[in-house]
Amino acid sequence: MSVYNVMEEVISDVLHQYEKELHLTCDCDRCKDDIMAIALNEVKPQYIVNEMHKPYIRAGHVADRQGATNILSTVVKAARVVSESPRCDNYKKTT
Amino acid sequence: MSVYNVMEEVISDVLHQYEKELHLTCDCDRCKDDIMAIALNEVKPQYIVNEMHKPYIRAGHVADRQGATNILSTVVKAARVVSESPRCDNYKKTT
Repeated sequence: MSVYNVMEEVISDVLHQYEKELHLTCDCDRCKDDIMAIALNEVKPQYIVNEMHKPYIRAGHVADRQGATNILSTVVKAARVVSESPRCDNYKKTT
Repeated sequence: MSVYNVMEEVISDVLHQYEKELHLTCDCDRCKDDIMAIALNEVKPQYIVNEMHKPYIRAGHVADRQGATNILSTVVKAARVVSESPRCDNYKKTT
């Protein structure tokens, strides 16, 4: 089975591009994965079969200003949820 | 990045379970991937971070009768779309 949800890369790109501005409480892989999962569950998936089409579809998302803004706000919300209560091992010990 | 959309396996399970009843025009990998992508784009994603939770969430989908019925009807519709106009190499030659 080789289907891909292009939104995984679109959201990952946004998370990395705005990581500094997000002021994450913790930037470990687990916390970033939690942010990815929360954000991906809030956006309509865009599955494709042919990996060669990925770059074009990703570019389309960058060009779509309103769409990009919506995705950024979804990532900001997800980052806030995770920053308020990180579930990673760094925070399990302290709480 | 290790996030998983559990719906990929839920849909794949349904596709394999009902493959005979779907009377696919073509059952090659490409056509089944096309059916998966179309169906996955129609259902709400369920991304998780921890692979260990997958079995529990998959089981939940099987137990949820109404949810399972909705997923089956989504797969049936996707199968019909692909069967009406397969995009795989088997059919490119004949059309």
